[in-house]
Formats: sequence, structure tokens, C-alpha cells
Amino acid sequence: MPTYRAIVAYDGTRYAGWQVQRELPTIQGMLEAALQRIGGESIRVTASGRTDAGVHALGQVIAFRLETRLTPGRLCRAINANTPEDIFVRDVSLASDSFHPIADAIAKRYRYLIDEGPEVNVFQRAYAWQIRHPLDIERMRAAARHLIGTYDFSSFEAAGSPRASSVRSVDQLTIHRRPAEIASRLEIEISANGFLYNMVRNIVGALVVIGRGEYSESWMAELREARDRRRGPATAPPHGLYLVDVTYPAAANLAGAPDSEAPDSETG
Amino acid sequence: MPTYRAIVAYDGTRYAGWQVQRELPTIQGMLEAALQRIGGESIRVTASGRTDAGVHALGQVIAFRLETRLTPGRLCRAINANTPEDIFVRDVSLASDSFHPIADAIAKRYRYLIDEGPEVNVFQRAYAWQIRHPLDIERMRAAARHLIGTYDFSSFEAAGSPRASSVRSVDQLTIHRRPAEIASRLEIEISANGFLYNMVRNIVGALVVIGRGEYSESWMAELREARDRRRGPATAPPHGLYLVDVTYPAAANLAGAPDSEAPDSETG
Repeated sequence: MPTYRAIVAYDGTRYAGWQVQRELPTIQGMLEAALQRIGGESIRVTASGRTDAGVHALGQVIAFRLETRLTPGRLCRAINANTPEDIFVRDVSLASDSFHPIADAIAKRYRYLIDEGPEVNVFQRAYAWQIRHPLDIERMRAAARHLIGTYDFSSFEAAGSPRASSVRSVDQLTIHRRPAEIASRLEIEISANGFLYNMVRNIVGALVVIGRGEYSESWMAELREARDRRRGPATAPPHGLYLVDVTYPAAANLAGAPDSEAPDSETG
Repeated sequence: MPTYRAIVAYDGTRYAGWQVQRELPTIQGMLEAALQRIGGESIRVTASGRTDAGVHALGQVIAFRLETRLTPGRLCRAINANTPEDIFVRDVSLASDSFHPIADAIAKRYRYLIDEGPEVNVFQRAYAWQIRHPLDIERMRAAARHLIGTYDFSSFEAAGSPRASSVRSVDQLTIHRRPAEIASRLEIEISANGFLYNMVRNIVGALVVIGRGEYSESWMAELREARDRRRGPATAPPHGLYLVDVTYPAAANLAGAPDSEAPDSETG
């Protein structure tokens, strides 16, 4: 049975997160239900990582196995015809049978949006963290530099979720401010070879208290070195967070052109 | 009892429009309920115009009469503390007793947002009209020029809603395209001394069929001259529409500085 890889955008607002849960709407649940309607049997979908309730995605990567005569392009349209309008499959392609969206990922990028200004932006309540007082973006940038590199990030890992290793490599941590009609938009982007649970939201929480002037820039290095989540400030809320994209090795995972027919001979 | 003028932004998504309706949530209903909690009695709020279900506002202008010792600034915060988070009062000021937000308005500006691209923008489902095929913006601009000036706009007035006169003066009709990550954003802005019912949405509907190449630019002039709504294409959906601001004569309507105390002697 061929393996497909798909890129999915979703508005996480009304979902209890990615992972299937009894009685609660989840992204995984909606996608599996759509594929079951298309394929006629129960199909398991795996993702590059779970997103929490309220967290959004521009480019979540998923994989599933399905027997179908549809081309990837038609399969993509068929899934979109069977999912609610807050989930949109951007692309479907054939992948190698061994493709695994978590294990094969070599990098991920997240974005965190903050609306900064005295006025509430009523149109962004579910899409950006609204902060009334202006943040010192230069201090935040200076603090962010202490997080670029390979470090033990356990100070930014949600308590009670230990992994085998808390060491990750952050390649990029950029902060941009764009003027906007109602509130200035702060866009924080973080790329790393992997993320601990709540790592982005905990980093954003620390950047914000530094941007408010409650801590110095160098406190970010102290916090990182403490390797103790209890030293960190509050976690930023989920609704400002977006999974932007996931990187895989170029050659390893794709079989066939994106819109080629899946011949029966390949499906055994 | 002093008259106040306020500027209000709202996300119209979950409301049955501006005007109070039995059993349905409306913007007017929410604001009147908030003022009743503050003032202790039933207070009527009037607006510069009613907005339909799903239509948004950045700068709706309202008026109400209220006896309070609060400064306008504190009154503003008190209303915001008593309204849901999809309604935000941006400013409250004292107005002259004769201020009437409909009768005194000398100009209004609306914006209509279109997301244009092959992909659905899941984050803008309630905030922009999503159009899959690209529009020819130069044709739309050429067509728009036929609507600038003083004309009988009855071809763009919702059927069954005749006013004393269908003549209005459109000062500005601009169309901009901004590239964006998921879909290009088309921003259509229209200023006029007044608008007929559904006028903006009917103009946008006509611009879109011209942008798709279904009609020529000059057809807009023919449609306008026909003075017959039945000749026009479908009305654009409500959720792309924003009331941006309302203009009043500079001197006529404001009494007192925006944040001055309302002395008892003025309230009799």
C-alpha cells in the first residue's frame, strides 16, 4: 500500500489539538475521518509532531498509507472536500514506504505572533497574543542570541515531559515588528533541529518578560544555564503559535512526481 | 443628560448584525447591555448605520446619552470591561446634545477584503472573501473609474430597499493587491457621502466578475446607467466587508476634550 505525505494548514482554534481524543474534535480525527470516507477503511495518520489545543499550522507534515486510484492531486482535493473549512491540505505527494514524519524530520520552524498596542485587535483574538504595552524589541533580540546554538534547553521544556535528551540546536531566532492599522505585529520565528514540549511558548514567555524590562538580556543565558523550568516565566498562550514548516532530507522520502498516477503495480 | 460619541471596532462573525433583534446576539444589543450595567438604566445606542450579519467594523461611530461621573476615558474602559472580546470601544468623547451619528455623517469609508489564490487561507475564512482564480486588477481599476462621481446608484442597491434618493457621490474607489504568504490580499476601499443598502457588496460583486474577464470594463458604466439591480451580478458575501470610518463636520459635534471630566453642572 503506497505511503503519502501531505502538507496541511489548520486553524487550531476549535480543536483539542492534533491528537485524536475521545469525544473531542482534533485535527488528526478530522483527517482520519476524511481518509476513511475516501478509502473505505480505517486509516491512521501520523504527523511531524502534535500541536496543542489552539495552536495553528501553516505546514504540518503528515503521512498515511492508502490504496487509491486517485492521483495525489485528486486525492488532495478529495481530502479537502471531506474536511471542515478550518483544515486545508496544501499538497499531497507519494513518499517512500519508509517515510516517517517524526523520525525523518531534520528541522522545524515555528512562528509566534504578538499583537502589541493599546487597542485590542478584535480580528486577531485567536491568532496572536495581544500585549497592551510596547516591548523593547532590541532587548529581545539581544536575549534571543543566547539561545542560538546547541544547548540543553530543559529550562524551556514543559515540566513533567522529559525526553531522552533535552539538547537541541536552534539555528535561527528572529524577531520582526511590522506596523499595522490596529496593533503592531511582532513576528518571532524559531528554527531548530527539534523542539522540546512547549519549548517555543516558553522561549516566547521569557522573551516577553525581557521585552517588558523585567529582566536583563543576559538573564536569558542564566535561565538557559539553570536547566530548570521552575526558573522560567509563564508559558506564552497557545493561540499565537504556528508550525510553519518541517524539513526532510531532499532525496530520502519522496517517490514519484507530485501529481503522477499511482500505478497499481506500485501499490502491492 | 450628556451625549457621548464612541468609536467601536467589532468582529461581526458571530452576530446577527448591528441592530437589536429578539433572541439573537447583535452588536447594538451587547453595547446597550454594557451601558445598562454601567448606568443602571436602559440606554439606547444609535450608530452611523446598521451593518449586516457577518460584516465587521474598524470605526463604527455610535452615540448614547448617559448620566455618569466617569471621565470619557474611564467610561471607555468600563464599556470594554462589559462587552465580549469581539467588540472593542476604541474611543469615547463628549458630543454636543444634538449629535446624531446618521444625520450628521458627511462621509463614510468601507473596505472589502478578498483573498485571491489557489489555496484556502484557513485563518481568514471569516475575514475575507476567498477567490480561487486570480483577478485582473487593472480591469477592475478601469471599471471602478466609472463609479467615481455623483450618480444614481440604484443598480447597486439591494432590491426592495428604496430610499428617497438613490443618488450618491463616490469620492474614492481604490484597489490594491498585497502579496502574502498564503493568498494575495486584494483591498478595495470606497468612500462616499453615503451608501445605499448593500451598495459596497454589490459594487464588489460587479468588480469581481469584471476582474474574472466575464464582462468588459465599460460594462460597469452600462450597469450603472441601467439603474436596475436585476442587471447586476451576485452580491459579494458579507464577511469581507469592513466599515472603516465615518466623517463628521469638524466643529459641530464635539463638546469638551476627549478625556475631560464631565462636571455635574453640564449633565442637567
